[in-house]
Formats: sequence, structure tokens, C-alpha cells
Amino acid sequence: MGGDFAPRAPITGSLHALSELPVEHDIELVGRAETIESELRELFAGEFATRGALRARLHIVDASDVVSMTDKPSSVLRGKANSSLVVGIKRVADGHAHAFVSAGNTGAQMAASLLLLKLHAGLTRPAIGTIFPTARQPILVLDSGANVDCSAEELVQFARIGAVYARDLLGRENPAIGLLSIGEEPEKGNAIVKDVHQLLVHSDLNFIGNVEGRDLPRGACDRGAIDVVVCDGFVGNVLLKFYEGIAPMLVGMVAEVANIDAQSTMRALTQLDAEEYGGAPLLGVRGVSVISHGKSSPRALKNAILVALRAFESGMTDDIGHALAQGSTT
Amino acid sequence: MGGDFAPRAPITGSLHALSELPVEHDIELVGRAETIESELRELFAGEFATRGALRARLHIVDASDVVSMTDKPSSVLRGKANSSLVVGIKRVADGHAHAFVSAGNTGAQMAASLLLLKLHAGLTRPAIGTIFPTARQPILVLDSGANVDCSAEELVQFARIGAVYARDLLGRENPAIGLLSIGEEPEKGNAIVKDVHQLLVHSDLNFIGNVEGRDLPRGACDRGAIDVVVCDGFVGNVLLKFYEGIAPMLVGMVAEVANIDAQSTMRALTQLDAEEYGGAPLLGVRGVSVISHGKSSPRALKNAILVALRAFESGMTDDIGHALAQGSTT
Repeated sequence: MGGDFAPRAPITGSLHALSELPVEHDIELVGRAETIESELRELFAGEFATRGALRARLHIVDASDVVSMTDKPSSVLRGKANSSLVVGIKRVADGHAHAFVSAGNTGAQMAASLLLLKLHAGLTRPAIGTIFPTARQPILVLDSGANVDCSAEELVQFARIGAVYARDLLGRENPAIGLLSIGEEPEKGNAIVKDVHQLLVHSDLNFIGNVEGRDLPRGACDRGAIDVVVCDGFVGNVLLKFYEGIAPMLVGMVAEVANIDAQSTMRALTQLDAEEYGGAPLLGVRGVSVISHGKSSPRALKNAILVALRAFESGMTDDIGHALAQGSTT
Repeated sequence: MGGDFAPRAPITGSLHALSELPVEHDIELVGRAETIESELRELFAGEFATRGALRARLHIVDASDVVSMTDKPSSVLRGKANSSLVVGIKRVADGHAHAFVSAGNTGAQMAASLLLLKLHAGLTRPAIGTIFPTARQPILVLDSGANVDCSAEELVQFARIGAVYARDLLGRENPAIGLLSIGEEPEKGNAIVKDVHQLLVHSDLNFIGNVEGRDLPRGACDRGAIDVVVCDGFVGNVLLKFYEGIAPMLVGMVAEVANIDAQSTMRALTQLDAEEYGGAPLLGVRGVSVISHGKSSPRALKNAILVALRAFESGMTDDIGHALAQGSTT
């Protein structure tokens, strides 16, 4: 029931995901049963008229409450215990489902995931990683908004979590971890970043040193390719939104001087397509909870479901737990 | 003597500046007299063969030491007291010159400006503002690298300083000040940003509230156009370098899909031309000291000289002093 285009977008996205996935994969649609059933009737009479077999792999889990985008995250668990958000995450917490995906209220999803799935030992808060397209391979930037005031220890945890993500979800061997700063020298940066640099140098991670803003677009610094960029959620969120804004602006400027069509050019830049990943798993909780943008299209949600599946199948959740436990002993 | 292309680039830039300026403006070239004289002979025999009259408006101030890019800023004043950097800034401090421009060691220029020109009362450190091109009017982002760990009071000072800059140098009436954060609501941001928000709300500045990363490329937020964006120097520097890196990357991507030439397209995007402003005045010191990029071309340095002149003629230095004094009493 979450997101600007619910329930149509999540249901259509689910049908597209099932179409791509082997038959052993099923999807539970959590929300108002009547609304979902009526949407399904329409879809199977229209776009999916020839795919009636998919219906058997869809299961409706009734949840009468709907969390709005303005509901306070802290009050959702108590005030809207029968919402699609809370019921869906409970399905994962109880072991009935392997992963949860939503385009609803992000803060509420974080709060409910935190309370129902619980954090790994040693973590104080979960993190969110975002995939940044670069001139080369995509890179993971974390935290990108869940944690604004971070201690040095928390930033080191992001590095550990990011390394697991890069390996399990992006397929990078021995991921190269960069620390976002304002100069490559260890003494450059704010007080916390300088501390984190020293902690990472002495860690077992493949730390390639400080990286600068200019290294992100090229996916590399002078010491080689970057897989993970560690920063606090304030800087990460500012950068993420700056990136979202600058791409269409620059493409528009180029379109004007080169006399080409901006919209079709933007579409042709498939590397920049934010729908390609569709969602970001909340990192550090004991279960897969994938957060999608409120404006997610069916295609974005289909891809978010595939991300959720990859997170589950790769064992990312347990791997993060191991990486954090290992970190706390070294 | 400072910068990657010294002494040719600063001397050529000075000649171009004099060509554009009324005859009452003179330029002092500070550095090794013999080197400068030999460069001038070459230039007046070549590129400036028909502009011999400019020679009378150039004055050589001999300074035998040269500050390298690797010299420690803190040791330059004592160790290289007869460098072009120190001698040049002293000319301003002593009232013999109205403004100083350099493409040399930025840290050393900051340190020498701070010690010789002194800070305005109430300031703990100077700030650097950078002009960001946007889809509309250029905006000023400060601090962009001089101050990495900032208190709430320092960020409010940046807002005051930025307002003066936007009025005196960019010609904005009643400049609109935005505070960089991760959401427009006052309660969004890290601990310091939330404090700054409250301080700015209760100030006499034209504070338009929090702005997000995505608002910078469009030069506006939902409440209207932005003139100044306030942030700490860590975030500002990361953003500045990200911008420098992302523009050629995106233009290159577009050039590939649209089959146009990337280099000529980049050149056609005059809005993105970093040489247009050429240099950034160090803000908060009692005198004009303009910092240019080490890689500055003659054209960039010509524009930096014009920025320095505008800063002097507008009375920016005194205006900043008044704005800070006013702020401390309200």
C-alpha cells in the first residue's frame, strides 16, 4: 500500500518479477485484500491476460491499515500495527517470508525494521547504501541518509557492512573501500574522518585511503578502482540528491548547445537509470528489508524485488553479522 | 611566482586585465625581478608587441623566495619572508596595494593572509566561497574547504559573509540564504545544522530555510531562488570536487550516446567554465586576497584580477566587517 503509485505499481512490479523468476519463487502482497484482489482482476483481464498462471504464485496477506507518508515513524508500530508495512516486516521477522520490499514511508520502514528485525550486535543504527553510477563500475556510497551524526566507530562499521554488500550484491572480490574526505593525505578531513582513517588503516579491510568528491564520478582514485565509499549520512544524502539533480540539469544544458533532445538523451543514458537497482536494503538489521523510492515505477519495484532476492540468496544478512562480529574482535 | 604555469600565466593574465581596465589601474608583479623582466621582454616582443603602452602600468616588486606547493603553510611566513606570496600580501596589509591575487600554495596564502591582514572581530577563521553554476543564476557555496569542523556560530557567520559577497560581488539585492541539509523541514539535519537553522530563523538575514543537494543544480528550492548556500567546509569541498568531476563525466556520456564531440560540447557550456570567476576572495580577512586554482590559465587569472578589483571597489571587506559586527549585537 506504500508509495505514490500504490497499489498498482507494487502489484505490477511483482507480476513482472514473477515473470522473470523461476517458478519456486512466490510473492506475498500485503495490504487491503479487497483492493489488491480488485487490482489483480483488472491486471489479469488486461496487461497480464495471457499470464494467468502467475496468479498461483501471488498470495494476499490482509492488512487493513495504511501508513501515510506523513505518519511519524515512531508511532507506526503501535498506532498502525495492522498496516501493510508492519505486517509485511513481521512476516520476515517470523520467518514466513524471506524479504520485504516497500516504496512507502522510509522513516516508518526503518523504524519498524529496526524494532521487528532487530540490529546485529554492536550496531547502534542501521545504514542505507546507495549505488552511484560512475564512468566505470557502479560504486556503493554509505551511509546515504540513515545516520547523520556518526562516530568514528560507526563509520568503520559502514566500511565493514559496505564491503559485504559489494561482495554479495555487486559481486566484487575483496572490495576496495575509500573514505570520503577533502584530500588524499591521511591528515586531511574533519576530526572524525581523520580518526576513521587511522582505524581503517589498521583494520583487515581492503582500505585504499581517502577519496575525494572528484573520484566518485570516475569510480576510481589515483590508487585504483573504488567499490565502496564511506561517509556519514549527512554528506552521503547531500551528494546523492546533488547527483539526482545535476544529471538532468547537465543533460539539459548539453541538449541545448548540441541541439539534441534532452528527454530521449536522458533515457539513452541507461547507466544513470535509478530504476536499475530499484531499492536499497536496510543494512545492519537481521533480515532483508528493501527500501524503494516513493515514486517507484513497476519496473523499479520489480528490480527492488530482484535486489531483495539477491540479498537473501547471497546470505548478506548473516555475512554482515559475521563481518561486524569479526570487526569487534580485531 | 605561484601556480603551475607561473610566471607566464600570472604575467599574461595581468596584461590581459590591464587591457580591459581603465588606465588608472596598475598592477604590481611580485616575484623574482629578473625572471619577470625576461618574461615581459618576451611578451612585449611577441603576443603584446602592439601593446607596449601597458608596460608603464606594470610595476615589479622584487621578491627572491618562491613558495612551493609542498611548503608547510605555517612555516612560510617565517621561513620564506621574502617570497612573492608574503611580500605581495604585505603590500596590501601596508596599504600600498588594494588587492592580492595568487595561484600559488592555497594553504600558505590563507595562513599569510590571516596573519598579515588579520581577521575581522568575532571570526575564528576565514572562509572560502565558491561559485556554483546552476540552471539559473550562479550561486555562492560557502564554506568550500577552509573550515572542516565548524560550530553553529561559525556557520551563521558564513551566512552573514555570504550575504555580503552575493550583494557586493554578484549584485544580488537582499540575497536569499539557504542552509544545506537533508530535508527542508527545520528538524532535518545533523545536530549543528539544526542549531544553525534556529539561529538563522531568528537572524535579520533573508533566510529561506534548508535547501537540499538537489536544489543546488537548479539554483532554487520550492521557496524560490537561492543566492547563498551555507555549509561546513567538509561538505562544501566534497560537493565542489564532485561537481568538477561529474560535469565532464556526464558530458562524455551524453556525447557518446548522442554521437557528438565531448570536448567541443564541454567548451560550448560556458556556464560551467570555472575560469569565468577565476578566483575566490578569502572571506573574513581585512583586505582582499584572491585565491586562484594552481592550474589557472592566463584567462582565469585575468578574471581573478577582475574579481579582486570588484571586491575592493565594492567595499566588500568593510561590508563584511559591518555585517559581522551587526550580527554580534543582534
